[in-house]
Amino acid sequence: MAKVKKTPRPKAETPKGFRDYFGTEVTERSHMLSQIARVYHRYGFEALESSAVETVEALGKFLPDVDRPNEGVFAWQEDAEGDKPGDWLALRYDLTAPLARVYAQHRNDLPTPYRRYAMGPVWRNEKPGPGRFRQFYQCDADTVGTSSMAADAEICAMLADCLEEVGIPRGDYAVRVNNRKVLNGVLEVIDHNHVLDRDAILRTIDKFDKVGADGVRELLTTGRRDASGAFIDGVNLHENQADVVLAFLTAKSEHPAKTLSNLRYAVGQSPVGAEGVDELEQIAELLAGQNYNPGRIDIDPSVVRGLGYYTGPVFEAELTFEILDEKGRKRQFGSVSGGGRYDGLVKRFTGQEVPAVGVSIGVDRLLAALHAKGRIGGKEAGPIVVTVMDRDRMADYMAIVAELRNAGLRAEVYLGNPKNFGNQLKYADKRQSPAAVIVGPDEWNAKVVQVKDLILGAKIAENATLEEWKERPSQYEVPRDQLVAKLREILAANGLG
Amino acid sequence: MAKVKKTPRPKAETPKGFRDYFGTEVTERSHMLSQIARVYHRYGFEALESSAVETVEALGKFLPDVDRPNEGVFAWQEDAEGDKPGDWLALRYDLTAPLARVYAQHRNDLPTPYRRYAMGPVWRNEKPGPGRFRQFYQCDADTVGTSSMAADAEICAMLADCLEEVGIPRGDYAVRVNNRKVLNGVLEVIDHNHVLDRDAILRTIDKFDKVGADGVRELLTTGRRDASGAFIDGVNLHENQADVVLAFLTAKSEHPAKTLSNLRYAVGQSPVGAEGVDELEQIAELLAGQNYNPGRIDIDPSVVRGLGYYTGPVFEAELTFEILDEKGRKRQFGSVSGGGRYDGLVKRFTGQEVPAVGVSIGVDRLLAALHAKGRIGGKEAGPIVVTVMDRDRMADYMAIVAELRNAGLRAEVYLGNPKNFGNQLKYADKRQSPAAVIVGPDEWNAKVVQVKDLILGAKIAENATLEEWKERPSQYEVPRDQLVAKLREILAANGLG
Repeated sequence: MAKVKKTPRPKAETPKGFRDYFGTEVTERSHMLSQIARVYHRYGFEALESSAVETVEALGKFLPDVDRPNEGVFAWQEDAEGDKPGDWLALRYDLTAPLARVYAQHRNDLPTPYRRYAMGPVWRNEKPGPGRFRQFYQCDADTVGTSSMAADAEICAMLADCLEEVGIPRGDYAVRVNNRKVLNGVLEVIDHNHVLDRDAILRTIDKFDKVGADGVRELLTTGRRDASGAFIDGVNLHENQADVVLAFLTAKSEHPAKTLSNLRYAVGQSPVGAEGVDELEQIAELLAGQNYNPGRIDIDPSVVRGLGYYTGPVFEAELTFEILDEKGRKRQFGSVSGGGRYDGLVKRFTGQEVPAVGVSIGVDRLLAALHAKGRIGGKEAGPIVVTVMDRDRMADYMAIVAELRNAGLRAEVYLGNPKNFGNQLKYADKRQSPAAVIVGPDEWNAKVVQVKDLILGAKIAENATLEEWKERPSQYEVPRDQLVAKLREILAANGLG
Repeated sequence: MAKVKKTPRPKAETPKGFRDYFGTEVTERSHMLSQIARVYHRYGFEALESSAVETVEALGKFLPDVDRPNEGVFAWQEDAEGDKPGDWLALRYDLTAPLARVYAQHRNDLPTPYRRYAMGPVWRNEKPGPGRFRQFYQCDADTVGTSSMAADAEICAMLADCLEEVGIPRGDYAVRVNNRKVLNGVLEVIDHNHVLDRDAILRTIDKFDKVGADGVRELLTTGRRDASGAFIDGVNLHENQADVVLAFLTAKSEHPAKTLSNLRYAVGQSPVGAEGVDELEQIAELLAGQNYNPGRIDIDPSVVRGLGYYTGPVFEAELTFEILDEKGRKRQFGSVSGGGRYDGLVKRFTGQEVPAVGVSIGVDRLLAALHAKGRIGGKEAGPIVVTVMDRDRMADYMAIVAELRNAGLRAEVYLGNPKNFGNQLKYADKRQSPAAVIVGPDEWNAKVVQVKDLILGAKIAENATLEEWKERPSQYEVPRDQLVAKLREILAANGLG
């Protein structure tokens, strides 16, 4: 008889570029999201949750990252209905495009201006890389329907408050503000007749973070040989044109007034440039009365991320402390949030210009920063484990565990095969249990329980001499009715109270 | 010149079957999820968040609802890489299939048994209907890797605790437990030689909720004419075969012991049936010691939902209070949660039998129930609105609002065009603001502020005589430095303290 071929087993794998989050990875993030939501809410923002799925038509093509042209969305076509071909649907790639759709759809019912916050996963159909996933969280706040710079200033202040709320102290972060209109002014100055390749200039400016002022100057003019020896062609600006761009990029001074006058110089007679500088000045003035001093929120034209996407003010929050990278070198942690003012998103739907400004906080980056600084990520204690000596008394063990849970203690009864007691303690170890409860026939009879302090036990096992072991027992016999009190004592002694 | 055709504007619409959630719709749900998470966590369950996207291969076809054969998933194919065709990916349709994949993938790192909880949206590519959406939340807890009935009993107890935690008092819910093995025993009794159409019998039993005992008997035997006059063919069992099925479905007695003996009678000599009854007896015994009395958690063979999907115990939680339906008729609110024991999900990946048991709480249904009972959904107060009388003093208004926020008050400055003061109060009304702060030139000079109690103001405007209006002013002038205190007083007076 021929062998019957079995259907091969499915592979138990996350799709490429996706991952699973376990335990504290989930709870730390959800804690951070609720901290940020609390600040957003205090600022008067309303929660909005749109679905993960939008029509491709509604989403449009507004991906903010100019340097990833291959980036796309996950999309599929609905089944046809009769003759009518199905709509194309896609997973949202950010929370801003859905906001524009929601505002256009519900604008008659929403207040104007509409302050809203949203948090949740977004999806990008791009090549995954180390630490770069195709699903990640965004945590946004936007104000739709006002062109007042007070909205922009408010969002910068709120961003600073959020960072402090999640545990980044003042001094460890900087919110930096630039303005696309100032750049437009600069371009007007050097390219009054629109003959230059402005996209190429924009892409070059975007490299300022990586190659610095000298590098940008080379790339704007004659070209540059990079570290690998490869030669990158320049954009062929004249030196005096490059001067103006560099005057813009390096306008930052310690004194905001000086930064602004540097910018006024760079934009010369350009009306849009002057408008941009005025906006920055307004933001600075609006914040000055509120203790958001320079050093905390700064006008800083070296912020280039997002300049290609936003149409007015552009913000970025950077963490300024140093961490050690994977090779042990010190480096600044860098950007954790970005935002700015954008137009046109709602207009696509309604034809009406609706100004909007918003910010997006990268919670996964922020969590990584807090981990890197050791501010979160101490291992969470697991549940107290009630071990099982006699499987026929399972109801009694469950009654014990119910009593602990009703007292608010995190606890569970061992549900595996109880035959091998060692396995039960190994399980408690894997769960990082702070304590185990042990009740055998003798204990049932005497109405007592054994309580084992597993944290102390582990410490003793590691370090103690025999003498110390005797003096500091880690297992206690207590009357049955003192179990909860004893466990509370052990938790408190281990800083878990 | 020919008219240039414009690209038509995109439609601002959610895709069919999807919806947006605003304000308290979002925050009430996230509050409920965190309440349930707290209970799950106290029971020792660990959070897990897998991605929304899985390979179609890993998801398999395990949709729990037997009566919706058209139900599907949202799926798409990845781009090919060279000659290799892209994988098919899909949005998860529940949280159980991803759990099976996660457990198979990470089983060497996970504790056994593995208790995990997960909450998040799932997607079904099915025809949307009234109140039925293609994206909805699930909130699951499962224990993988133990066949102990203590796991099943624990999940029933936890389900009861969750319902009480979110605000369903004892007496307003019932957790009911049935067992697929008992049904298998019944089938063995009436169909020892496997000649009957068991799927048809199962589908008929599934209608027990709708057509009752007599209806099921008709459908199991000669057929039934429904309310519309249509005749539905019967399954052609003999009356004595139908007797056994009905003995199973109606075995419930007030006394659990009697229920169990009724079931033993129904399964006769069937070994699997006896096993099923033993399991139910164990669950009842395990819970008896913990005050989960009959009436709170019951053995009830009339629970038929999920019998086709689960392989052992099956649970359902029903809310037992009456609500008025859309036509004003009283009816029981019904099911808000289901679960049970399932096998084979992990085995698909590893070849090894891994027993598992879990529960899924329908948070959207639960929220609807709490709304129907008026237990949540009082309109949330909006932010205090600081109005703008003089746009040149925006920085001063922002300083006021910053002071309020720093004092923990939810507040915002009006960001629209301040010209029309009436619009500012209309905005405050739309936001359901409890109070407005008004500062004009006189107030700036005198270092005072006007505070308007908008809730009291609205009440007065509705009801009061002129006399009352004079006696109960709703607007107060207070020194600038007493603003926060006055606002706190107003919030407290309106029960918002």
